[in-house]
Amino acid sequence: MTASLIGLDWGTTSLRGYRLDAGGAVLDCRTQDAGILRVADGDFDAAFEACVGAWLDAEPDLPLIASGMIGSRQGWVEAPYVPCPAGLDALAAGLTKVQTKRGATLSLVPGITHRAADGVPDVARGEETQILGALDASGMADGLFVLPGTHTKWALARDGAIVWFATFMTGEVFDVLCRHSILGRMMDDQDDPSGFARGLAAAAGDAEASGGLLHRLFSARTLALFDELPAPQVRPYLSGLLIGQEIVEAGRVVAAMAPGRTAVTLIGGAALVPPYRQALAHFGYGVAAADAAVVTRGLARIADAAGLLRSPA
Amino acid sequence: MTASLIGLDWGTTSLRGYRLDAGGAVLDCRTQDAGILRVADGDFDAAFEACVGAWLDAEPDLPLIASGMIGSRQGWVEAPYVPCPAGLDALAAGLTKVQTKRGATLSLVPGITHRAADGVPDVARGEETQILGALDASGMADGLFVLPGTHTKWALARDGAIVWFATFMTGEVFDVLCRHSILGRMMDDQDDPSGFARGLAAAAGDAEASGGLLHRLFSARTLALFDELPAPQVRPYLSGLLIGQEIVEAGRVVAAMAPGRTAVTLIGGAALVPPYRQALAHFGYGVAAADAAVVTRGLARIADAAGLLRSPA
Repeated sequence: MTASLIGLDWGTTSLRGYRLDAGGAVLDCRTQDAGILRVADGDFDAAFEACVGAWLDAEPDLPLIASGMIGSRQGWVEAPYVPCPAGLDALAAGLTKVQTKRGATLSLVPGITHRAADGVPDVARGEETQILGALDASGMADGLFVLPGTHTKWALARDGAIVWFATFMTGEVFDVLCRHSILGRMMDDQDDPSGFARGLAAAAGDAEASGGLLHRLFSARTLALFDELPAPQVRPYLSGLLIGQEIVEAGRVVAAMAPGRTAVTLIGGAALVPPYRQALAHFGYGVAAADAAVVTRGLARIADAAGLLRSPA
Repeated sequence: MTASLIGLDWGTTSLRGYRLDAGGAVLDCRTQDAGILRVADGDFDAAFEACVGAWLDAEPDLPLIASGMIGSRQGWVEAPYVPCPAGLDALAAGLTKVQTKRGATLSLVPGITHRAADGVPDVARGEETQILGALDASGMADGLFVLPGTHTKWALARDGAIVWFATFMTGEVFDVLCRHSILGRMMDDQDDPSGFARGLAAAAGDAEASGGLLHRLFSARTLALFDELPAPQVRPYLSGLLIGQEIVEAGRVVAAMAPGRTAVTLIGGAALVPPYRQALAHFGYGVAAADAAVVTRGLARIADAAGLLRSPA
């Protein structure tokens, strides 16, 4: 089939190239172990050629767009952050062009930034494309999105633009506590997932009666010490405690900004969707999971807004 | 001078032996690198003899009391936890005796436990002796105590007994984030302590507007990324953020249990007293620092309550 666009999802650990039609549907796909931290000598052009060169040989005038860490300071060229509210037009206007050795022009999608009421900036790069792709797929102009990961993002869209987002270090805090803290020593090699719901329940408890996160973390130790939390439940319990805490934190902000919004679109890999689905449901959210096509859909919509799409022959 | 008691402050990393008078004043002191994790082959008797054997040779009938991790499951003999409210009489009644090879009797002070309203147990071992020593030194029956450390303890005393306490993993979370997270990579070898007050201010901010701890941790990265937090301030900023968060968490519980109590007695080592003093003052607490003699004073008062003290000749 005739392609209208080549889209690249180029992150820290991997590079995915797609031949796309005008709607963002995937015609061909190539995945390479060429995330920006794995590209030898910063030779992004060589990684680019290895991924999509054959497609360009066949169709030299296909437009090219990329999102993700490739547009960061550590990437090919920095595509400066665009402030919220950020919709398709703002991202299209913020595209940064890079000329490849073969003379093609690659457009890099900018990351987004938002300054909270307290003046503190937040940043996202790559997620903006997924969120706008998921928003487009939903057929709605508004939405609440959760993108679980090492650094989980929550985002609100209104009138087709991302108006707020915030990062939560949930995944990384979990990881360092498991590997390097006294809590890790209470854990078993095997997990009993029933600990997860107990962690969620603990996170939902009354902070006035029992303290917040820095205190509750210790409960993973004391419950185990008192034989009230079996070792295989300790890691899932800690996971539930942290994800639950994140939902409480984010939920306070969302409730203030978008009262009554309890429908969440979950965007993420297969491993984190089930626990987040369970956790969000525990806290009263209605959850829909976006499919994996949100990246390519977002890339196609941004390219379209920028007038880059090749017209069908 | 004539001693009335030998007291041992026997923790995880060190062992301190004291010849004490009836009021707990120190006549002689010996410190040894013989914390329970450093005693070879669990030969606590040998470590005990090396520390206080010479004093016992001279005065074989001196009573002996010890507090700290020596009474834990990993110590000499386990002295089971006493539930709150725990005053001098309850701790005296909970002493666990161990016979040494020379035929002396060492009394081990029990740790304390408390079950919060949510049913989760908390534990302390060693701190109970410091708190009751500090309470005795204050001449009051009530008090609020903060004992900073890897696992910081907050405690409330009423009518001479510890009625509530809670553990906060502040110090350990700070340590693992500095050493193992992405935040550590933003830090400089040299610290600029002015970052500490900025972290306190961030912790005091409105969680409804800007999220809680899991989100705020990320501000140490984004502020640095935007050149709004110099690298030498990142570590002190993170410290202020975490200690501030602890004070907010603990403060909510204290306000519910003891409305209006803002006078805090700080018990701890030289390194942590100045930052905690600054942090507590930032949040409106009046701070008094206890002197190092709270341990020996506590040991003497518990021994007295147990009828162990040798009468002056």
